[in-house]
Amino acid sequence: MTTARNELETGTQLSRDTLNAKELQNIDAYWRASNYLCAGMIYLRENPLLREPLRPQHFKNRLLGHWGSDPGQTFAWVHLNRVICKHDLEMMYISGPGHGAPAVISQAYLEGAYSEIDPDKSQDEHGMRNLFRAFSFPGQWGSHCTPEVPGSIHEGGELGYSLSHAFGAAFDNPDLIVNVMVGDGEAETGPLAAAWHSNKFLNPLRDGAVLPILHLNGYKIANPTILARIDPEELEFLFRGYGWTPYVVDGSDSTVMHQKMAAALDACIEQIRSIQESARSTGNATRPRWPMIILRSPKGWTGPAEVDGHKVEDFWRSHQVPISDPAGNPEHLALVDQWLRSYRPEELFDHSGRLMPYLRTLCPRHQRRMSTSPHANGGQLCKPLDLPDFRQYAVAIDGPGVERTSPTGALGPMLRDVMARNMSSFRLFSPDENASNRLQAVYEASPKTWLATIKPEDADGTHVAPDGRVMEILSEHTVEGWLEGYILTGRHGLLNTYEAFVHVIDSMYNQHAKWLEKSKLEVHWRAPVPSLNILISSVVWRQDHNGFSHQDPGFLDVVSNKSAEITRIYLPPDANCLLSVTDHCLRSRDYVNVIVADKQPHLVYLDMDAAIEHCTKGIGVWDWASTDNGAEPDAVIACAGDILTQEALAAAAILRERLPELKVRFINVVDLHRLQHETAHPHGLSDAEFDALFTTDKPVIFNFHGYPWLIHKFTYRRSNHTNIHVHGYKEKGNIDTPLSLAIQNQVDRYHLAIDVINRVPGLESRGHALKQWLMEQIAEGVLQAHSEGEDTSDIRDWKWPGSPDSGYIQREH
Amino acid sequence: MTTARNELETGTQLSRDTLNAKELQNIDAYWRASNYLCAGMIYLRENPLLREPLRPQHFKNRLLGHWGSDPGQTFAWVHLNRVICKHDLEMMYISGPGHGAPAVISQAYLEGAYSEIDPDKSQDEHGMRNLFRAFSFPGQWGSHCTPEVPGSIHEGGELGYSLSHAFGAAFDNPDLIVNVMVGDGEAETGPLAAAWHSNKFLNPLRDGAVLPILHLNGYKIANPTILARIDPEELEFLFRGYGWTPYVVDGSDSTVMHQKMAAALDACIEQIRSIQESARSTGNATRPRWPMIILRSPKGWTGPAEVDGHKVEDFWRSHQVPISDPAGNPEHLALVDQWLRSYRPEELFDHSGRLMPYLRTLCPRHQRRMSTSPHANGGQLCKPLDLPDFRQYAVAIDGPGVERTSPTGALGPMLRDVMARNMSSFRLFSPDENASNRLQAVYEASPKTWLATIKPEDADGTHVAPDGRVMEILSEHTVEGWLEGYILTGRHGLLNTYEAFVHVIDSMYNQHAKWLEKSKLEVHWRAPVPSLNILISSVVWRQDHNGFSHQDPGFLDVVSNKSAEITRIYLPPDANCLLSVTDHCLRSRDYVNVIVADKQPHLVYLDMDAAIEHCTKGIGVWDWASTDNGAEPDAVIACAGDILTQEALAAAAILRERLPELKVRFINVVDLHRLQHETAHPHGLSDAEFDALFTTDKPVIFNFHGYPWLIHKFTYRRSNHTNIHVHGYKEKGNIDTPLSLAIQNQVDRYHLAIDVINRVPGLESRGHALKQWLMEQIAEGVLQAHSEGEDTSDIRDWKWPGSPDSGYIQREH
Repeated sequence: MTTARNELETGTQLSRDTLNAKELQNIDAYWRASNYLCAGMIYLRENPLLREPLRPQHFKNRLLGHWGSDPGQTFAWVHLNRVICKHDLEMMYISGPGHGAPAVISQAYLEGAYSEIDPDKSQDEHGMRNLFRAFSFPGQWGSHCTPEVPGSIHEGGELGYSLSHAFGAAFDNPDLIVNVMVGDGEAETGPLAAAWHSNKFLNPLRDGAVLPILHLNGYKIANPTILARIDPEELEFLFRGYGWTPYVVDGSDSTVMHQKMAAALDACIEQIRSIQESARSTGNATRPRWPMIILRSPKGWTGPAEVDGHKVEDFWRSHQVPISDPAGNPEHLALVDQWLRSYRPEELFDHSGRLMPYLRTLCPRHQRRMSTSPHANGGQLCKPLDLPDFRQYAVAIDGPGVERTSPTGALGPMLRDVMARNMSSFRLFSPDENASNRLQAVYEASPKTWLATIKPEDADGTHVAPDGRVMEILSEHTVEGWLEGYILTGRHGLLNTYEAFVHVIDSMYNQHAKWLEKSKLEVHWRAPVPSLNILISSVVWRQDHNGFSHQDPGFLDVVSNKSAEITRIYLPPDANCLLSVTDHCLRSRDYVNVIVADKQPHLVYLDMDAAIEHCTKGIGVWDWASTDNGAEPDAVIACAGDILTQEALAAAAILRERLPELKVRFINVVDLHRLQHETAHPHGLSDAEFDALFTTDKPVIFNFHGYPWLIHKFTYRRSNHTNIHVHGYKEKGNIDTPLSLAIQNQVDRYHLAIDVINRVPGLESRGHALKQWLMEQIAEGVLQAHSEGEDTSDIRDWKWPGSPDSGYIQREH
Repeated sequence: MTTARNELETGTQLSRDTLNAKELQNIDAYWRASNYLCAGMIYLRENPLLREPLRPQHFKNRLLGHWGSDPGQTFAWVHLNRVICKHDLEMMYISGPGHGAPAVISQAYLEGAYSEIDPDKSQDEHGMRNLFRAFSFPGQWGSHCTPEVPGSIHEGGELGYSLSHAFGAAFDNPDLIVNVMVGDGEAETGPLAAAWHSNKFLNPLRDGAVLPILHLNGYKIANPTILARIDPEELEFLFRGYGWTPYVVDGSDSTVMHQKMAAALDACIEQIRSIQESARSTGNATRPRWPMIILRSPKGWTGPAEVDGHKVEDFWRSHQVPISDPAGNPEHLALVDQWLRSYRPEELFDHSGRLMPYLRTLCPRHQRRMSTSPHANGGQLCKPLDLPDFRQYAVAIDGPGVERTSPTGALGPMLRDVMARNMSSFRLFSPDENASNRLQAVYEASPKTWLATIKPEDADGTHVAPDGRVMEILSEHTVEGWLEGYILTGRHGLLNTYEAFVHVIDSMYNQHAKWLEKSKLEVHWRAPVPSLNILISSVVWRQDHNGFSHQDPGFLDVVSNKSAEITRIYLPPDANCLLSVTDHCLRSRDYVNVIVADKQPHLVYLDMDAAIEHCTKGIGVWDWASTDNGAEPDAVIACAGDILTQEALAAAAILRERLPELKVRFINVVDLHRLQHETAHPHGLSDAEFDALFTTDKPVIFNFHGYPWLIHKFTYRRSNHTNIHVHGYKEKGNIDTPLSLAIQNQVDRYHLAIDVINRVPGLESRGHALKQWLMEQIAEGVLQAHSEGEDTSDIRDWKWPGSPDSGYIQREH
């Protein structure tokens, strides 16, 4: 254990005189300027430079914002600026404790980024006043590193994703160093705890570096943090165990801390460069032990030490506003005044209110400023993917519903070629499920990234290599975080995951969707970024063998709660439609595209031309499966989802054969939002279009992939809504056969046909015998499954019986 | 670094002769019996004891199940049995890789647990055949450690929660040791990575022990695992960093491995006992470095080494069924035959098919068997909470809607007393938000559990102590997992969390709900367990200051997708109703109760008697706020949620004053499922009851806490559905004032009143002037907020103006 400690101590012993006196003085002054602005944002609406004594009317009426993490973050930023200037580095900054936005905003303001976006936030007294008033103010800026904050790709409202975002940004950006402040509160979350292992997926040959700064400021909202309250030796073990080389910067004396931080950063940059140079000169990508910094500084550092007899600095009481009610409490007012003046603003800002020239030289130039990093506005850098013609992967068919192909299996070769053509701007992400989801063709273009140990036997199908571009770790959080970081910095990707477990990242979806909506609709300077593409496979209806816990199609409900401006849901009925939809999604910007497609072999209904037409319309009548001949039907059978489409078609086939005079219209929905009204979603149909498809008064039997209410949610204001009867997953399941699972939830052909018979007026007596037969099939299907444990051939071997006059004879009943 | 290694090596050097020859032989035989059963379950439907040569018809038609992790798990189990017998220990077993259910099922069968539940699974050849046929078979048992598996409280379908469940089980069970097998795949997930730190929350004085066995079998579905592919030294650092004392058991030679495992377990048990004895004899709860085991054994250990020229044992190819198609491939059939016979079943089972007597002695007796641990059927052990009379915490009021109180603040004292009366069977859980959510009164009964370092300044409001019973770590996953483990073992708890971030545990909710549904409806021997109580606070409508990312009421949509048999959603309108609802939830069993209640001061409408009556009904007309005098109204104003109720009342007050002849019925909903039909949910109203409240043809303006569609989902088949107009969160938000946020989403009094005017026939001209005024109020509300940054007094200071004839005069407009 001695070795570890010594090495670290050596790191910090180097630190005594990294900075000369002038450098030290200037850096400290820049830091004070930044801290001053942070406090000003929280408190002041007038008198921004304290040119007159503070009076109650200078304060905001509602004091909001988080002081606690600000001084540590500004401290890191000013030191990062020093090494950017010294080495002409390309750096980004991700603020894990994004509620400490004043730190980031203050630096962006000092760097001029705000004035460039908004002339009203000019670098003078007037602009500073406007800056203070905009922070955490109704209708203006939030108290987190929201999309409105230049240089930010990470809001940090919901904690846990800063580190995976940082890695996503660093992939395929070989010259970039992504600094990521990890709060010790955030570090307790699962997603963050898992993401430290991302260093096994970063290739020094082609990727940039991630420099985590674990900020041990000791407290969360109301509790100490775990990592600040374990032995320093345990802490160092932890990070060595995670595969990092930690450098500790620990203390509260600013002079000593500046020297330590400067030395640590010099050592880190040197180590990063040495790792990269060594790898790049030899072509050898052995996993490095990348450096990281453990910055232990007081919470609310430089703020009031004590208020009303309570410890505040270096304590949880610094978390938000350290001194409340200065406008109403003269003693508190005096304390704030004293605190703000302790930064000596008169030494930092000139008569106009601009940062003094001697400090401006500490700020990096142009795009080297972290607040204007082009990577943080990734749409600017984004190049369209070089996409192959997706038509070439088409599954050839002789007619609808005869051939079976795994939809995702058919997508694999297309993704392989997308990968091959975009070897530095496209990645495929999955929590250990690419192969399970039948996308393994992609390994022909590139294996999986793996910087951990590789064994000889890996040659036999493990598909891991340091230069792989397929990203797999068994953490939905981590792969989603990587992908978000990757696309927010202007690159492209697709994540595939089991349907039931995509709920693991519900909240990440929510946060990304909110980020995207604001960016797209309200932040004029953010360029559109590639869409977040999520392919959901191993779907509920074929989790018969894994059972109940693997059956959950509810992610679509979560998705549909977010803004119509950014949400897109596709349920391609077959392989060719999946190809068309995926091509569309890969070309799109600023959406979350959710595609649901199973991996098991399923019927192909449309040749590629028909698939393109169908997907472009997003919804359509399948004339070949309908018996209404364009006239008003007796009933509509509608469906969305591959397995559900098969069962709906099988129901239509049964009805056609047994009740040939019944006029059934068959509708398939690919683009689920087509069902919504045109005023509710850009893809929505007008009422006239909807009524032309679904009629205004005929029964509609809708077989839906997910929970049935989503269809009601999308259609409840349609004129024919009371006649829409939705079949879907009803939370009935166990270990089972596909048929039996379908029957339990009444999405099988038999229940659908029965429902049509029940709903069409006047069909009861004519349909009676058929209904009896259908009910027998249901009983038999379940019985057969439960007595034999077979895949009943009904559901897996069924084919569309061809056109009505094809002479096809249904097997004897 | 040397010290760490030496200590571990010492641990394993102890191992050479822990077992004598006979013990070794017997343990190995028991292990072989268990492994034999695992393989049998995956493959066989007949010929369970191989009494005839294997033939194709002996195989199941569909081979399902996971072999890879089984032998490592059975290995651990047989060794745990040894120490249980040796020391008469009370132990539980949690299988992280729960898809390796054959391991657990085989042990439960050998221990007789299955025969006790189901005589058909008798301990003879017939019973063994039935066991094999039941495994992963339609309509029977799943392939995971589902609720049907005796001894299991953790399915392990969705990975990540085994360790937090284990800790939950160990809390307040001082004599229990919870063994938890953590798969190296699962170990990559965020929730698992965070849960290692749970050791800072386990108090050796009063809690049991958790003994994690990290199972490094090297591979996930199709990838190596990270922890198996980092340097052993890094691995050991990692777990020392997490605060554990790791013992390594590493190899593949079974003889050597038995000795090593026996020695490691002896050492662990000794260490656990020594920690507990030392703490309990001194009363000193200094954080121990609890032991854990790193078991590195081949994936698919003892299975086929190679198949078709491909490595299988110790490789990813062992993950599921190692040899496919034995029924159709004679070479594969021979391989399976050879493999199964390698366990020498004839030495293990007697002529009847029962485990040989010399092996039966290795099995613990009665409730010492891990498969029949009473803790794993926690309802059996569960005692009702000793609850105080919740009426004593009532907020006294002079009339409806005058006093303001924080609802959660009023709940705090009640939870304090619940805690004080149940100091070994109730805990309160939160991700660092108990105080933020105003429940801090609970600290008067007990502080927060904290075994990490405590500093002198913690005395000032940090409320941490080793014997605390409030559980806080900044990980929603960890606190939820703890709580689930705690209640599944028969104790009681409540989790409170910010509304937006409860989505972090969407998938944990889903999994628990599914577990509960199966347990309750289909597993007759499981006793009811205390409900999972989730209190959602810091709600969307008062996240105006934190902004858009903190605004998400969508958890209710996720909740409502699960079975009506177990889901309950409550939206108490005020503090007194919250007290009544919480009392009800704490008494209930086998539900997930979700309570939504804000922390900010809100109006109190009902005195305690009225609150009890209202909550008991779950829905009701508030006559004092209605102007229909029991007659048919012109319109219904309905609401659910505290803030939404205030705005609905304010709208009613405006209408009453300005349009006194308008007959408005005012309905408040506490129990959201009352809106559903009685056939859809046990709490649902009949159509007659619903229609009596909501009429069949009058406009209903419904002000709802969450996304509006949930109300439509619950009511879309009601006769008056087309007239129900729901206001709710429409994903419009930013940093704002409460009024302005309400206005953006049209849940404010003005929009509601306008909607009434628009919907009531014939009101347009009479209501014209009022509508103009309302629209001016809306514009003014937003403007005022955005120009001044004030809390507009409208929404925060409003009070109910009293009864219509009270002489109250609304302020001038």
